[in-house]
Amino acid sequence: MFITFEGTEGVGKTTLIQKVHAYFVAQGKEVVLTREPGGTPLAEHIRGLLLTPNADEAMSPDAELLLLYAARAQHLAQVILPALAEGKVVLSDRFTDASYAYQCLGRGLSKEKLQILNTSFVQQMPHLTFWLDAPIELGMSRARARGELDRFEQEKLSFFEKVRAGYAELYAAEPDRIKRLDATLDPNTVFNLALAELAQIGA
Amino acid sequence: MFITFEGTEGVGKTTLIQKVHAYFVAQGKEVVLTREPGGTPLAEHIRGLLLTPNADEAMSPDAELLLLYAARAQHLAQVILPALAEGKVVLSDRFTDASYAYQCLGRGLSKEKLQILNTSFVQQMPHLTFWLDAPIELGMSRARARGELDRFEQEKLSFFEKVRAGYAELYAAEPDRIKRLDATLDPNTVFNLALAELAQIGA
Repeated sequence: MFITFEGTEGVGKTTLIQKVHAYFVAQGKEVVLTREPGGTPLAEHIRGLLLTPNADEAMSPDAELLLLYAARAQHLAQVILPALAEGKVVLSDRFTDASYAYQCLGRGLSKEKLQILNTSFVQQMPHLTFWLDAPIELGMSRARARGELDRFEQEKLSFFEKVRAGYAELYAAEPDRIKRLDATLDPNTVFNLALAELAQIGA
Repeated sequence: MFITFEGTEGVGKTTLIQKVHAYFVAQGKEVVLTREPGGTPLAEHIRGLLLTPNADEAMSPDAELLLLYAARAQHLAQVILPALAEGKVVLSDRFTDASYAYQCLGRGLSKEKLQILNTSFVQQMPHLTFWLDAPIELGMSRARARGELDRFEQEKLSFFEKVRAGYAELYAAEPDRIKRLDATLDPNTVFNLALAELAQIGA
């Protein structure tokens, strides 16, 4: 079982992941908790390249997309695929949908290039994806309260509106895989809605 | 004019590039000397990831290929394409052919995946490529004499035989672009053969 958690900044992904983690652990399942970009030492190193602003050298959109997929390939090979092969539950904070929402909708990168990378380099799509959705202003004020903003979080509000629209597109296209959760609700209610979705697929 | 220099370890690429560089400078041309993987600070950083052995985490073949193309995308966007747009001569120590020879033939990575990346992410192929070809044993003994071997150079002889076969395949497929130079000859003779090829295309 491979479950991913998606959404813009400050929508409560971390809190929900912890609760879903505890839920599976209480069932006696072995759970791997991971995130993207990242999940292995090399992929976390690549994450650092992606999230750290570099005033001296603008990162080209193609380089950004390819770095993301290099990290993803390593994450799949080292963590996700072996864990699934051993029957573990894998919970990932972001996956391919984030690349679509942030890189294609947010930065205007070619959806076709992303689709090509997904087809050629992603051997396993999530069985279930929780999209935590809330107005951008709400999430940003929560993210700001957490401290320094990283390169993505420094983007303008309009950028995040596009990212949110990207998630909405994916949700419309794949309603069986992607479940929208209203992230303006309190965390326990969100968790109970997630549990209802898990029950639907027998998890 | 975009010219690349290809070949296995120790065949004399650096020496030939220096001579070709001096030839263009003597003509009053502006020349950009670069290399792959690398050519920008970010791409050189990625080069470090690719060439430094990491005992703790094996790099997946897909991650290796995608990191190479991330570095290449950045190199194209920051260095190669702007220089060509300004009418400069670009000389690069390795480019896409090296990925084909080392990753596909050497490591057995999918040629189809490489082709997909070339089609989607490489906006400019070289106008001319010099393939410096010599028996592997000869090149390796020269490389060994230079000092410590990097991750690629630590590979077995049989690996480099496959890489050489990869270059031979490319040469057979694209004889108009790729010119084979006999790297067992002395450096000045190799340079004169290269000059003859440059004269053929009016450079």
